[in-house]
Amino acid sequence: MSKYIHIQEAAYEANMQLPKLNLVIFTFGNVSAADRDLGVFAIKPSGVPYEDLTPAKMVIVDFEGKTVEGNLRPSSDTLTHAVLYKHWDKINGIVHTHSTYATAWAQAQRDIPIFGTTHADHTTNDIPCAPPMDDEMIKGDYEYQTGFQIMNHFKEKGLSYEETEMVLVGNHAPFTWGKTPAKAVYNSAVCEAVAQMAFLTEQIRNDSPRLKDALIQKHFERKHGPNSYYGQ
Amino acid sequence: MSKYIHIQEAAYEANMQLPKLNLVIFTFGNVSAADRDLGVFAIKPSGVPYEDLTPAKMVIVDFEGKTVEGNLRPSSDTLTHAVLYKHWDKINGIVHTHSTYATAWAQAQRDIPIFGTTHADHTTNDIPCAPPMDDEMIKGDYEYQTGFQIMNHFKEKGLSYEETEMVLVGNHAPFTWGKTPAKAVYNSAVCEAVAQMAFLTEQIRNDSPRLKDALIQKHFERKHGPNSYYGQ
Amino acid sequence: MSKYIHIQEAAYEANMQLPKLNLVIFTFGNVSAADRDLGVFAIKPSGVPYEDLTPAKMVIVDFEGKTVEGNLRPSSDTLTHAVLYKHWDKINGIVHTHSTYATAWAQAQRDIPIFGTTHADHTTNDIPCAPPMDDEMIKGDYEYQTGFQIMNHFKEKGLSYEETEMVLVGNHAPFTWGKTPAKAVYNSAVCEAVAQMAFLTEQIRNDSPRLKDALIQKHFERKHGPNSYYGQ
Amino acid sequence: MSKYIHIQEAAYEANMQLPKLNLVIFTFGNVSAADRDLGVFAIKPSGVPYEDLTPAKMVIVDFEGKTVEGNLRPSSDTLTHAVLYKHWDKINGIVHTHSTYATAWAQAQRDIPIFGTTHADHTTNDIPCAPPMDDEMIKGDYEYQTGFQIMNHFKEKGLSYEETEMVLVGNHAPFTWGKTPAKAVYNSAVCEAVAQMAFLTEQIRNDSPRLKDALIQKHFERKHGPNSYYGQ
Repeated sequence: MSKYIHIQEAAYEANMQLPKLNLVIFTFGNVSAADRDLGVFAIKPSGVPYEDLTPAKMVIVDFEGKTVEGNLRPSSDTLTHAVLYKHWDKINGIVHTHSTYATAWAQAQRDIPIFGTTHADHTTNDIPCAPPMDDEMIKGDYEYQTGFQIMNHFKEKGLSYEETEMVLVGNHAPFTWGKTPAKAVYNSAVCEAVAQMAFLTEQIRNDSPRLKDALIQKHFERKHGPNSYYGQ
Repeated sequence: MSKYIHIQEAAYEANMQLPKLNLVIFTFGNVSAADRDLGVFAIKPSGVPYEDLTPAKMVIVDFEGKTVEGNLRPSSDTLTHAVLYKHWDKINGIVHTHSTYATAWAQAQRDIPIFGTTHADHTTNDIPCAPPMDDEMIKGDYEYQTGFQIMNHFKEKGLSYEETEMVLVGNHAPFTWGKTPAKAVYNSAVCEAVAQMAFLTEQIRNDSPRLKDALIQKHFERKHGPNSYYGQ
Repeated sequence: MSKYIHIQEAAYEANMQLPKLNLVIFTFGNVSAADRDLGVFAIKPSGVPYEDLTPAKMVIVDFEGKTVEGNLRPSSDTLTHAVLYKHWDKINGIVHTHSTYATAWAQAQRDIPIFGTTHADHTTNDIPCAPPMDDEMIKGDYEYQTGFQIMNHFKEKGLSYEETEMVLVGNHAPFTWGKTPAKAVYNSAVCEAVAQMAFLTEQIRNDSPRLKDALIQKHFERKHGPNSYYGQ
Repeated sequence: MSKYIHIQEAAYEANMQLPKLNLVIFTFGNVSAADRDLGVFAIKPSGVPYEDLTPAKMVIVDFEGKTVEGNLRPSSDTLTHAVLYKHWDKINGIVHTHSTYATAWAQAQRDIPIFGTTHADHTTNDIPCAPPMDDEMIKGDYEYQTGFQIMNHFKEKGLSYEETEMVLVGNHAPFTWGKTPAKAVYNSAVCEAVAQMAFLTEQIRNDSPRLKDALIQKHFERKHGPNSYYGQ
């Protein structure tokens, strides 16, 4: 048995959640699970349908993006995962999907405005949409640069990846992350739900205002602040 | 066995309906069930996934919001439930969800206009949207004040909680209630269905008129009036 | 065993299709099945959840709307069914639902324009929306008048109930019918699908033109004309 | 056992995917599977519900549209399939559905603009919408002419059927194809997903720009180019 079996199992379980949560069809998504002590992550093999996955098929890759163990080719988005793991050292799970509503916002190249407490329960910021990359970066090491595009956008906007665990890549689709692969999957479903609600909110009233600061702070703090009182 | 087992079971059954009716994902909702003779209600524990719930995990709380029995922390919305039970003495079940369409109307801070008989079968009024609270109230005892915000809005608008068993809290999401927890859950599903139909009605014709009074009265009366002829 | 068991079973089977086809929640719909030789129809009892239905619970009613057999109260819409059976002598099944998209068009008081071949496969006309009744008729024998409102609208517009087997009642919801209860249920699902497609068509292009006559005729004729070549 | 059993089974399996993928209700779609050595294809019989299908019921038809084997009447769209197989010699599967969002774009007579990488993963072009035919062609050999309408539109627009494996027929609905029936079904689901995302993208921002060339090329090439690195 592989010494990586624990992250292979975690990655497998998390990948299998994506179709159950209606976040992917066919092979339109991937999840990885990292072990920072071993300096590697397990990630879905490229183009393999979810129903054919097993824990052992998860490919082991290091934070430079080199395959360490496994016979299958890793997800085509592997280098984006590697870059984020290397530079954001508190995350242990990353998810990429093309979920319908979040992808539509990414295609419109718009941040998802914070309109309500469902959103504020998870972050105090609009869900950021990183702009599409320059053509040179796209033609070069595309997936590697996608990771930097995300990180640079967070720097520019003064966002913390520990607070805001999701991003839209302009014209592409959402990436989410978390302290565990399960939390990263949870964030993908939250991102999709918030994206749908924000779409509807603008349709119902096209000048809907952003949520006011007092409500943003209250809802975020009651779940994530030092005096939080949500959960067990 | 707890002497509260009957309301724990009622609350458990009602909570489990929320994911089945597609009204919640993850832990985005809660139901409580009251026993007025005992002066308490059973409510979902905070942040516990629906698949991990059991009747025994339902927390027993009195109408002041103090936990009477149970090892788990009750829902973060418990004080809103307590306030409503204390002041509205004919209700024995309360539901809070972030269901998609109803939440979008709440985020747009709009009442849901009464456009058709599906709506009039359940209330003669637009589904009211209480405005977001003042910042001082938000920063204070937020969930407690949410209960008062709902009740004050009903008073101001001259609405009866016995006729209109649902409200949107502006920027937040719907609360519904009823004589039983099962009826409160039913009202949550009705609120969501009516919210979706009203959204579509405005999209199909942006100057769709409110339902006329004769139809409002007819449909409400045939289900709820003294000469009602709906049901067995 | 009742001598009406054959129509009770047909009505039961047809009613049970409604939740499976996502055309109703809770008790928001009803189907009836007629036997013209016996001069009666079997209809869903009022307010009974689909999961509690049995064939024996279907109520037997004559074409004047009087209950002939059964202990339960028939659907509150029974008189509408009775009027249509009495005057339209080629139909043996009627369905009423509050399906989401069709109801939204009814609430907007608009005919559903014929935009494509999916629609033309079933009728050559826009799906008509009968206007809401005068207040006097609503206050009077409402469900009985609803039947006449539908028939009068068909007369006024020169429509044939044998070709166009569906109608929207303004501010209310769709009714459909057919030579069998199963066909009437099929028509309800078609009406809902066409209503959704027409909604989307206008959203995608707000001046989408009606389908041209040559395509309307071709698609209707290949399924329903004297030289039809669809089906077995 | 028929010597065509291999394509009957392939056509059967592919047809049964359509309801599972929510691409059809009732009999609103059909799939065929071709064997070029035998010069025939197997296609769904007309108007038979999916739950009643068996491999043996698939009708064997040659590329002129003549039935070679089978007691049932083939799909009313058979001649469209025959024309495409005859002229496009690298395809072995064809699918026709009335899937909701793709059909709405067809009804609006608009190409689906390429807005994101989900689209570019599958083709570098907008998904083309062939205009409705002239009335004379509609009144004549309609399904046969539909095949030519599709091919002529590809010629006019300079599109390759090997790269762009999907088309909308104006006022009608989508057709998709592929090297295998399974790939053609996959393309139908992709077409529907891309159609929904494009609809939402325009709703969220009505001047959303087309995807820029560098991203179109990158995403298409990484999946389909000579140096592709997607899949196993």
